[in-house]
Amino acid sequence: MIQKFYNLKINTNGQKLYEFTKETSLWITQNKFSEGMLNLSIMHTSASIIIQENADPDVQNDLIKYFDKLVPMDNKLYTHTTEGKDDMPAHIKSALTNNQISLSIKDGELLLGTWQGLYLFEHRLENKKRIVIHHFLGD
Amino acid sequence: MIQKFYNLKINTNGQKLYEFTKETSLWITQNKFSEGMLNLSIMHTSASIIIQENADPDVQNDLIKYFDKLVPMDNKLYTHTTEGKDDMPAHIKSALTNNQISLSIKDGELLLGTWQGLYLFEHRLENKKRIVIHHFLGD
Amino acid sequence: MIQKFYNLKINTNGQKLYEFTKETSLWITQNKFSEGMLNLSIMHTSASIIIQENADPDVQNDLIKYFDKLVPMDNKLYTHTTEGKDDMPAHIKSALTNNQISLSIKDGELLLGTWQGLYLFEHRLENKKRIVIHHFLGD
Repeated sequence: MIQKFYNLKINTNGQKLYEFTKETSLWITQNKFSEGMLNLSIMHTSASIIIQENADPDVQNDLIKYFDKLVPMDNKLYTHTTEGKDDMPAHIKSALTNNQISLSIKDGELLLGTWQGLYLFEHRLENKKRIVIHHFLGD
Repeated sequence: MIQKFYNLKINTNGQKLYEFTKETSLWITQNKFSEGMLNLSIMHTSASIIIQENADPDVQNDLIKYFDKLVPMDNKLYTHTTEGKDDMPAHIKSALTNNQISLSIKDGELLLGTWQGLYLFEHRLENKKRIVIHHFLGD
Repeated sequence: MIQKFYNLKINTNGQKLYEFTKETSLWITQNKFSEGMLNLSIMHTSASIIIQENADPDVQNDLIKYFDKLVPMDNKLYTHTTEGKDDMPAHIKSALTNNQISLSIKDGELLLGTWQGLYLFEHRLENKKRIVIHHFLGD
């Protein structure tokens, strides 16, 4: 059994989905991982890791729009407002999605569906430097 | 350490919860797994894997009804409408729940609560063939 | 490879976030775990495990308030009402968050961000005895 870690850095500029499927796949190939679990975690509570459709870009736009409507950026709704109108909604969006996802690797490949991509879902408005920790455990 | 994979096929006919606790438990017993992690993932972004109450069927009906109200099937709300009025809501419901769950196995048994069951939560209206990938890693 | 289990008991008294980061970290230190995955799961479908900000307590209050508004405790909205007005909303909140989270351990420490804490998110009103199962797999 081997274990290996990798910090993927993603610079974000606003509320969008940032795909990193290629980066993750490349790391798996470069390390010649064969079978195992890949735990992805994000060290923040104002951005998420999600698996979403990678075909039609409208899906991502609709998703962002939906979450903004579900969790309005309206300071009147929250007590925690010192970090900006987008901060408390970001924490809520994080709770409604995921900070962590475990993926399976078989025959050297990520088990993802044809239309599935890995995304960092940024909930803050300003530029951020995010880290997605990759942790492989397997053979 | 051993690793083993299994693709559980579930045919769905509409927005419902499809329990597969028995199928998963049977696979564990048949393979005599003792201790380890079981990663479940679904290769789609329009259906989810969730753990829910398995006692009162009303819980499942209320859950489906709630999600349908929270994410309305109304084409006016979305740009991505080419795949049907239920497709974009399905992607959103998928983001609000989970595509993936990791379970623990101890003494040859899934660590689930008495009232917990494993479900595929189908968000599409038409008939679908779904696959829940089972990946065991342990002893 | 070693595997170890631990049942952390948390007594709850109402809808709040109960932090257990210290208890989990202590268990890791006491067992001298070096590298591996830690699977946390809760045996209930009316409470969640979430990672949230541990700095400003207002974040937790805003989060609880938001979820209560999103999933109202109103018996008229649900069929499953026999276990109290808070039970069906608890199941829905559970589906919207997580029953399970996998964490990575490196160099003997949980990989959590500076502002991240581990919480049990209780959705029931009455006093409850909850168990968070800890399952370590690694070296």
